[in-house]
Amino acid sequence: MEKIFRVLHQDQHSKARTGLLSLGHGIVKTPVFMPVGTNGTVKAMYHRTVKEIGYSLILGNTYHLYLRPGCNVLTQFDGLHRFSDWDANILTDSGGFQIFSLSKLRKIYNEGISFQSHIDGSRHEFTPEKVVDIQQTIGSDIAMCLDICSPPGIDHKKTLKAMDITHAWAERSIARRDSLEELTGRSFRGKLFGIVQGGFYDDLRCQSAHTVSDMDFDGIAIGGLSVGEAKEQFVHFLALTAAEVTLSKPRYVMGIGTVDYILEAVGNGIDMFDCVLATREARHGTVFTDDGMLNLRRSFNKFSDRPLSENCTCTACTGYSRAYLHHLFKCNEMLGGMLASEHNLAYLYNLMQRVHRAIEEDRFESFKNDYLKRFYADGGLCRK
Amino acid sequence: MEKIFRVLHQDQHSKARTGLLSLGHGIVKTPVFMPVGTNGTVKAMYHRTVKEIGYSLILGNTYHLYLRPGCNVLTQFDGLHRFSDWDANILTDSGGFQIFSLSKLRKIYNEGISFQSHIDGSRHEFTPEKVVDIQQTIGSDIAMCLDICSPPGIDHKKTLKAMDITHAWAERSIARRDSLEELTGRSFRGKLFGIVQGGFYDDLRCQSAHTVSDMDFDGIAIGGLSVGEAKEQFVHFLALTAAEVTLSKPRYVMGIGTVDYILEAVGNGIDMFDCVLATREARHGTVFTDDGMLNLRRSFNKFSDRPLSENCTCTACTGYSRAYLHHLFKCNEMLGGMLASEHNLAYLYNLMQRVHRAIEEDRFESFKNDYLKRFYADGGLCRK
Repeated sequence: MEKIFRVLHQDQHSKARTGLLSLGHGIVKTPVFMPVGTNGTVKAMYHRTVKEIGYSLILGNTYHLYLRPGCNVLTQFDGLHRFSDWDANILTDSGGFQIFSLSKLRKIYNEGISFQSHIDGSRHEFTPEKVVDIQQTIGSDIAMCLDICSPPGIDHKKTLKAMDITHAWAERSIARRDSLEELTGRSFRGKLFGIVQGGFYDDLRCQSAHTVSDMDFDGIAIGGLSVGEAKEQFVHFLALTAAEVTLSKPRYVMGIGTVDYILEAVGNGIDMFDCVLATREARHGTVFTDDGMLNLRRSFNKFSDRPLSENCTCTACTGYSRAYLHHLFKCNEMLGGMLASEHNLAYLYNLMQRVHRAIEEDRFESFKNDYLKRFYADGGLCRK
Repeated sequence: MEKIFRVLHQDQHSKARTGLLSLGHGIVKTPVFMPVGTNGTVKAMYHRTVKEIGYSLILGNTYHLYLRPGCNVLTQFDGLHRFSDWDANILTDSGGFQIFSLSKLRKIYNEGISFQSHIDGSRHEFTPEKVVDIQQTIGSDIAMCLDICSPPGIDHKKTLKAMDITHAWAERSIARRDSLEELTGRSFRGKLFGIVQGGFYDDLRCQSAHTVSDMDFDGIAIGGLSVGEAKEQFVHFLALTAAEVTLSKPRYVMGIGTVDYILEAVGNGIDMFDCVLATREARHGTVFTDDGMLNLRRSFNKFSDRPLSENCTCTACTGYSRAYLHHLFKCNEMLGGMLASEHNLAYLYNLMQRVHRAIEEDRFESFKNDYLKRFYADGGLCRK
């Protein structure tokens, strides 16, 4: 298998590293934050703006795209790239997590998962093979295997069973990928990542990390973190699992978007992460600053002529004041969410650029400490 | 008084004309459609995109801007231009119409109007003088006089009284404009337009047209049309009033945005119009095409690879299919409203360009007939 990842620089004093990820629609520098475009649109953003910020890898949700617009529409457009006018890379998740968080009446078999659509109640079934096929239809540059997430509170026996099924599904996903050309006349268009599970048990996490690392995947995701556990648990299981996952492939932690979790992941040698938080918080009027999260609805913004964040070159920061953004959110004007979304994505992109520089200058740990000290100086909130 | 308007070309076979309007933030070619930015933002649009389409004159609502962000905030930013990052022209209405359509417990005195905010129920008073002052604070390039709108169904006596008050307020507005420098040390920043009223009575309409035409205004608006009357009434009172308003000044009909009303106005020598319809319909998934209004939520769009409208160069038409827009609206994604708003504003801008060419080639009437014949071929709806 052709390698899609190479390490550029290993920080001398931490596990943090920079790297290059070669994908079907261009090269991506890591560590990389991926904006989420659940329905084939990064919410409240033009795709061209997402790209202008610098992003070349975004995420789509297989569960959502399968339900709407559906595979027949995506087939007509030969995938999501042309349908959504996005010519850089797309990673799609497996749909497993969405089935657990959104759909009703789900049932897990060895064969797959049956579930009810959260939109219209219709019944569907996902198998590992079908999920590979759907992502082939989407044209994902990175596809994920169907998996079962075990949140905290699930006992060891059930977590073990879910993990074993996840591993079996991983092998079936690989088999499907490798037989796709024979089955359909078209080889698999993207790269396939496996997902480590094992819940909140040290032994299972290690076992899963080793098992999935040894499989024929292009990259490895650590799943089942940031699913409601305490931060100490996240930190513990992230470090434990990351230490056991192969270093030769790109390493991805799913669903993290706060600055402390992102920097924790980078410090553990994680290369990729995604989260809806940046755009969701933006639509509710909360934006990233170096001094914590700024709630634009708060009245102290009313007369403020300051930009959202110093040194930010996004549309919001170069054209508008906090006072104007405050006004937009008070009036529930869409432009508020549009500008705040652009800012949050630009902020995280720039943060990753700062992270790259810190790693390449072997000072990631001190960067992380200084950054978090300022960010959390007032409880993580920017209050003036 | 310096003239701000000159006719470029008078169509040989109709009253339609092209002209140039010289304002504080640039020259505007007429007939001009003005997008509405009620709260200092054209909904779902970046101001830079509004300008890129070609617009150099947008509308703001005095009533809304007075309530939010309020004059103290606008004063801090020396007006709406800097506050909202819009460096072309702004016209603001007088607030009179909004008081009648939105606020509660309004009461008209000879002195002014007292009303209750639709936002928080707080009590306020608008006088003609105060409305001039507010628009000076906003920094409007075109300000409107406070007026009283008489919708259909108001009797002759009450309509006459409302008209007389409107005329008295017009004189007081002019007096305020002319004394502003002495009162405040800063001369009036914009141009002041009077408003013709007279309800749905021929004699009052003519009387108001003559009275307001003779006053010292930079332009004349025909108010109190498109306020719920039948189309025949609109056509009748528009033609009647337009024939009596001076031709030497820019002539403005407030609140019209459907293609038939716009072309009717142009055919009566109207130079300016505005409406929220283009952006409001867009947010609900309905867009302009030459074949009528297209409802993107309808299922016939699901697989359509066509652009919204042929020959349109907006972001929606150059980057996306009807199928993608359909998908966005089915998912209630903000990008749907953003793209459709841009398209509708681009469509109307381009329509006005076509109107300019038709006038300058003395074929406005045939253009109008051909255009409306195609647009209304299937009841004004694009059904495929």
